[in-house]
Parts: sequence; structure tokens; C-alpha cells
Amino acid sequence: MAHTIRDKEKLLQRVRRIRGQLASVERDLEQEQDCYKVLQTVAACRGAINGLMAAIIEGHIALHVIDPKQKPTPEQQAAAHELIAVIKSYLK
Amino acid sequence: MAHTIRDKEKLLQRVRRIRGQLASVERDLEQEQDCYKVLQTVAACRGAINGLMAAIIEGHIALHVIDPKQKPTPEQQAAAHELIAVIKSYLK
Amino acid sequence: MAHTIRDKEKLLQRVRRIRGQLASVERDLEQEQDCYKVLQTVAACRGAINGLMAAIIEGHIALHVIDPKQKPTPEQQAAAHELIAVIKSYLK
Amino acid sequence: MAHTIRDKEKLLQRVRRIRGQLASVERDLEQEQDCYKVLQTVAACRGAINGLMAAIIEGHIALHVIDPKQKPTPEQQAAAHELIAVIKSYLK
Repeated sequence: MAHTIRDKEKLLQRVRRIRGQLASVERDLEQEQDCYKVLQTVAACRGAINGLMAAIIEGHIALHVIDPKQKPTPEQQAAAHELIAVIKSYLK
Repeated sequence: MAHTIRDKEKLLQRVRRIRGQLASVERDLEQEQDCYKVLQTVAACRGAINGLMAAIIEGHIALHVIDPKQKPTPEQQAAAHELIAVIKSYLK
Repeated sequence: MAHTIRDKEKLLQRVRRIRGQLASVERDLEQEQDCYKVLQTVAACRGAINGLMAAIIEGHIALHVIDPKQKPTPEQQAAAHELIAVIKSYLK
Repeated sequence: MAHTIRDKEKLLQRVRRIRGQLASVERDLEQEQDCYKVLQTVAACRGAINGLMAAIIEGHIALHVIDPKQKPTPEQQAAAHELIAVIKSYLK
């Protein structure tokens, strides 16, 4: 089973939150709000998209690259954790 | 006048396109599509958010940091163009 | 006068620190150290390069785009500060 | 055997090239060259560091997370290739 199914509700919540942030960007643009305010909300969206990507990649590593049914060795599991740590620090 | 007002329609189109991409991520998650497909759409959203940020920053530089009413020197205009080029290469 | 001259010593210190980190990556590779150790040093270099870029861009905005001799308005100075804040959060 | 050993010469070449680029940044700063020239070389270093990171991560996935001795399934290998593609597009 794919991790995007296992983690479906959490991922959907993240996507809906980002859609809400973008709705707020759209509203601010329509109401001709201050450009710095718009820029800060867009920057927050970008951070949230990065977090979403990191969460999906993390599941992809833990359930597809490392397949729990294939009985990964402790070394493989350690390597997967190291990889996830690097990607998370990168995508924050 | 703020550039987010001058460029309002173009910026709104970008925001709406990203909202559409996120709606597609949401649908794929709900329909339990392949995780790699989801990941690719999220990566495309991230690129589009970066493009939106670069467009807003470009306007911010050209209309607020450089204020056309203050008669910027040719050197200031060249410096602004260099800055925009660096930021665009960074945010692509 | 260019900011890369005004801030010359500070920028040179940053560059030398990064060169030192890369010398350590080179040594670790030659001595066949653990790959995760190498990866962490490379990630630290990347952070330091981002910091160097942000510092040069900040000077470029403050001395070239905004030219102090052209008597920037308070609005231009505020816009420059906002821009620098966005770029710094981006390049950290 | 670690991939940083298998790919040692190629990785060392990348590191030495980046060290050369940084030596050129140092020289340009000392000779008080144009700031935009410095900025472009720093941006090139950043791209090269990203490429180095992607190369090390790729080896880490292919030799540590996926352990060839553990006979990965075709699905695991496909998942590893997808992951590497995402990371490469991210780190370019």
C-alpha cells in the first residue's frame, strides 16, 4: 500500500491549508493590499509546499525505496534515516 | 501605485493556476493515485510558487526600491537589472 | 565605492571559511570517511555559500540599487529593508 | 564499500573545481573587482555545490538505502530511480 494512502488524511490537511493560504493571496491581490503582505504570504506558501514535498518523499523512502516486506537490514534503515534527515533540512 | 496593482491580472492568473494544481494534488490523494504522480504535481506547484515570488519581487524592486519618480541613475537601473537576474536564476 | 570593497575583510573571511570546509570534504573523501559525514560537511558548505550570497546581495541593494548619494526616500529605504529580509529568509 | 569510495575520483574532481571557483572569488574580492562579477562566480559555486550534494545523495541511495547485496525488487529499484530524479531536479 502506498504511503500516500496510509498518510492520506495528514497530506490532505496540508494541501487544504496551502489552498487556504493561496486563497488569501488571491484575496489580498484583488483588494490591492500592500505588496509586502502579499510577498510574506507567498513565502509562507512556499515553505508549506516544501514541507508537503518532504513529507511525501519521506513516505516514498520509508515504504517504496525501503520496502518493509523485504526485511531491510539495520544498515539500510540507518541509511534511510540519514537520507530523510538531509532532505528535511534541505526542504525546510 | 503598487506593482501588485499594476500587474494584478497577471499575478492573479498565476495564483489561480497554482490553486488549480493544488486541487489536482488533492484529487489525486483522494483517489489514491500513484505517489510519484502526486510528487511530480507538488514539484510543479513548487516551481510555480517560485515563479510567482520572483514576479512579485521583481515588481517590488522596479517600483518600490527603485522609485521611477525619484529619477534613478543609469547605474541604479543597471544594478536593479543585475539583482533581478540573480533572483530569477535563484527562484527558477 | 562598491560594498564588496567596504565589506572586503568580512567577505574574505567567509570565503576562506568555506574553502576550509571544502578542504575538509576533500580530506574526508581521500581518507575514505563515512559518506554521511561527507554529506553533512557538504550541506554545511552549501549553507555557508548561501550566507555569502545573501551578504553580497544585501550590499548590492544597499549601495548600488539604493544609492545613498541619490538621497533615497524613507519609502525606498523601507522597501529595500523588506527585500533584504525576504532574500535572507530565502537564502538561509 | 561506500559509494564515496567507488566514486572517489569523480567526487574529488568536483570538490577541487569548486575550490578553484572559490579561489577565484577570493582573488576578485582582493583585487576589488566589480561586485556583480563576484556574485556570478558565487552563484556558480552554489550550483556546483548542489551538483556535488546530488551526486553524493545519489550514491547514498543506490548503495546504502538500496543495498545491491540485499537483492532489491524491481519496484524498489524503480522507486529509487524516481527519488533520484526528484532530488536531481531539486538540486540543480
